[in-house]
Amino acid sequence: MTASVTTSPPTKRGRPGYDQESVLSIAVEVFNKHGYDATSMGKLAENLGISKSAIYHHVPSKGDLLRLALDEALVPLEAIAKDEQAAVGTAEERLKFFLRSTIRVLVKRQQYVTLLLRLRGNTEIERDALERRRAVDRKVSDLVIEAQQEGSLRSDIDPRTTTRLLFGTINSLVEWFREDGNVTAEQVEDHAITMMFDGLHKSDR
Amino acid sequence: MTASVTTSPPTKRGRPGYDQESVLSIAVEVFNKHGYDATSMGKLAENLGISKSAIYHHVPSKGDLLRLALDEALVPLEAIAKDEQAAVGTAEERLKFFLRSTIRVLVKRQQYVTLLLRLRGNTEIERDALERRRAVDRKVSDLVIEAQQEGSLRSDIDPRTTTRLLFGTINSLVEWFREDGNVTAEQVEDHAITMMFDGLHKSDR
Repeated sequence: MTASVTTSPPTKRGRPGYDQESVLSIAVEVFNKHGYDATSMGKLAENLGISKSAIYHHVPSKGDLLRLALDEALVPLEAIAKDEQAAVGTAEERLKFFLRSTIRVLVKRQQYVTLLLRLRGNTEIERDALERRRAVDRKVSDLVIEAQQEGSLRSDIDPRTTTRLLFGTINSLVEWFREDGNVTAEQVEDHAITMMFDGLHKSDR
Repeated sequence: MTASVTTSPPTKRGRPGYDQESVLSIAVEVFNKHGYDATSMGKLAENLGISKSAIYHHVPSKGDLLRLALDEALVPLEAIAKDEQAAVGTAEERLKFFLRSTIRVLVKRQQYVTLLLRLRGNTEIERDALERRRAVDRKVSDLVIEAQQEGSLRSDIDPRTTTRLLFGTINSLVEWFREDGNVTAEQVEDHAITMMFDGLHKSDR
């Protein structure tokens, strides 16, 4: 997991001498703005202020750029299940750990996760990424079922709807969360978990 | 508020004799699939299986189609505030009424709301629609502030984040809710309200 992608500032137009990470960071912005299908290597070159052949110096094809960009979201999402904390505690605690970690990836890799969430599956690379995303999602839906069975999660909402409401809430963060906004990434993580598990209604518990 | 738009089945390609509502219903699908900017009147005509001049018989321009389609979402959303129930009860009860009613519009006018949520504001028509949407959203954020002040809503989450979490959760419904899925529109409305206000954690209250 390379943190440098998100911390490197958006490089200015016309500046030559990109490394692969900067190319990736700008490419994902252009993909998200115009859509992957509608983005040609020519348009990318224009946004980078370099020639097409200079892009090909970094990556062999547009598809490779997409694959690398999707990995920036998928690799840390897949790493969550391998964290030792993912195996500790009740199913509800493990579910919370998963969701917290997912939110963390979402806010740190916002552009890359946005790209992943908007995929349509038109190409093999997109379909592979969607399959990997589904595998991650299944871990969460399995935990929802387990947490309902252990009695910690309310079961008057079926597991499938519960899972969708959870993903709906956290995935929407990529649309509205801004690092420079009025709340920090840590606060937003706490707040989302609080709403989803304890609700917004004020109570004494 | 005309209910007929959502109940009219998607008309098949090549069938002549559309009314304006069917044209609208297909236009919004094409806008959502390819993006408004990327959809020409020629592409619309192709999807409708009629000539461009036949479309112009129904609407003067692509912009008018967009405006009419956005009205299908905005008019019922704006009507919520005028419902007498919107003025009854505590701020929390009024907030719940607003959110429930919004969810109802979202699931009944899914395509039109999707179009509204994806607007970029490139044209005057889009900016007008976004302004009307913001006016609707402001009513909800005002109610959140009022409900926190009356003490019914938890105030350890700031009102702005609370509002965004609420909209994030309910707006995401347009992405995943399917009328023919395993839960009805009424259930999804109940379930979303339950999660947002009472939380998923099982408790005795």
